[in-house]
Parts: sequence; C-alpha cells; structure tokens
Amino acid sequence: MKPRELSLEECADLLSTSKYGRLGMSINDLPYVIPMSFVYSDGMIFLHSNGRGKKIDLVSKNSNICFQIDRLDKDHWASVIVYGKARISSDMNAKRKMFDIFSQKGLGGHGGKPFQMEELERIEMTIWKIEVLEMTGREGIW
Amino acid sequence: MKPRELSLEECADLLSTSKYGRLGMSINDLPYVIPMSFVYSDGMIFLHSNGRGKKIDLVSKNSNICFQIDRLDKDHWASVIVYGKARISSDMNAKRKMFDIFSQKGLGGHGGKPFQMEELERIEMTIWKIEVLEMTGREGIW
Repeated sequence: MKPRELSLEECADLLSTSKYGRLGMSINDLPYVIPMSFVYSDGMIFLHSNGRGKKIDLVSKNSNICFQIDRLDKDHWASVIVYGKARISSDMNAKRKMFDIFSQKGLGGHGGKPFQMEELERIEMTIWKIEVLEMTGREGIW
Repeated sequence: MKPRELSLEECADLLSTSKYGRLGMSINDLPYVIPMSFVYSDGMIFLHSNGRGKKIDLVSKNSNICFQIDRLDKDHWASVIVYGKARISSDMNAKRKMFDIFSQKGLGGHGGKPFQMEELERIEMTIWKIEVLEMTGREGIW
C-alpha cells in the first residue's frame, strides 16, 4: 500500500493531539534532531527550553527548522512535517504567552507540574515560537 | 534536575532496544526529519525504503545525516543522537545483508510480515547503511 497524503485538517489534528515532536535544525548541512514537548496554538508551535546549549547556538545561526510529529503503531505510521522559522525570546511577554497556552492545555514544566507565574518570572527560560510556513503529512504501513 | 549524559554503552542499549528512530537530513541548511524503522547491528544502522522521493533526493546530495532515537515517558526522557554518513544501495548484496540482520531480529517488511528472499529479489528496495561517526545521549525530566 502506498502512503497517503494527509489533509491540512488531518495534519492539524495530529499536531493538536500530540505532546512531543522532534525538532530538526542544521548548520553547514550537518543536521541535528532532538525531542521536544510542544503546544500547537493559533497556527503556531510553541516550545520552551533553557537558554544555553547546542540547540540555542544552532537556532541563533539558522532559524530554519523542521518540526516533525508522528504516531507510530505496530503496523501503521502517520507523520506530519512542519517547516518554519523559529524565533526565540526570554522576555516576560513571551513567558506570559507560553504560560497562558500551556495552562490552557493543562501542561506544565519539569515533571508535568503546572507552571506558576511567579516561578516563571524567576527562572531562566527561552520560549520558541515557530511560525508554520508549510505543513505536510502522510500515513502508511511499515 | 539537569540532564545527564549517557555512556556509550547506554546509548548502544537504547539503539538495540528501539525499533523506530527519526532520520534528519539537510540541503541548503533546510532540515528535513522523517520517522524510520531501523536495525542497529555491528555498530551500524540499517534502514530500508523505496528508491524514490524526497529522502533519496536529499541523501544523494548530502550524505551527512543525524539519526535520533528516544524513549519518552510522562516525566522522563532519554535521547540518543547518532551522526553519520549514509550510503544507499539497491543491489542484491545490500538486500541480502539487510535480509539477514532483519531476520535475526525477527523484523520484517510491510505490516511486520517476515521478508522472503524471493520477494526481496523481486521488489524495488533501497538499503541505507549508516556508519556511526559520533554518538551522544542524554536523559532528564521534562
């Protein structure tokens, strides 16, 4: 059976019901992929991380990213690829925006504990906002 | 809690016990990530795919890949990143090698059915052999 293309609505459904995705970045055509928790809201993808390390170095040099989400079962797979530009920010407005959307979804920080705004103000945190430029999806059997 | 680096042995353990990973590729620093089933054997990663499409185009232009494997639980995550060079081949020797290692692991093709050598000889299939140049891993809580 050949893979089937997913509609934009089916892609958005998989994004809305997933908690984790894989963030692909690249410098000098050396790719780098890491798992990230995320929220899809208002047609954008929001991530959070600390403010140092390889992924921050990479995105600061090349904001073109690929965010990949999937549902892999024994026989069946479905995968959505989002191409976009990532913007990172550590200011209070970005933290508040992320606090709002994570709270709406009942998601939190370390260990799944709900965020407290007072804690967010205190801790170092970088918010990633990914504008979706293109989104494609497919499903098939292995 | 800060993430902890995994030892090479722990990385190899996660590779040996996983069935699916995410393959990262890049052209012109535009990253591309897809899920792939794989087998880790003799210090190399083996994938199979059909012989056409975007991933074949990309790997033909840039063989530098990143293969990422993880185990994501509610609170805890572990992730291994392999950097390597991918070599693709559709000849019978490559098919036989893949047939042997997939059979040893009890893995098969479409729908998980065991491969038959007669079928492999007949069908179009591209074998990906990834030489591991560097491997790193970390674990932590979300």
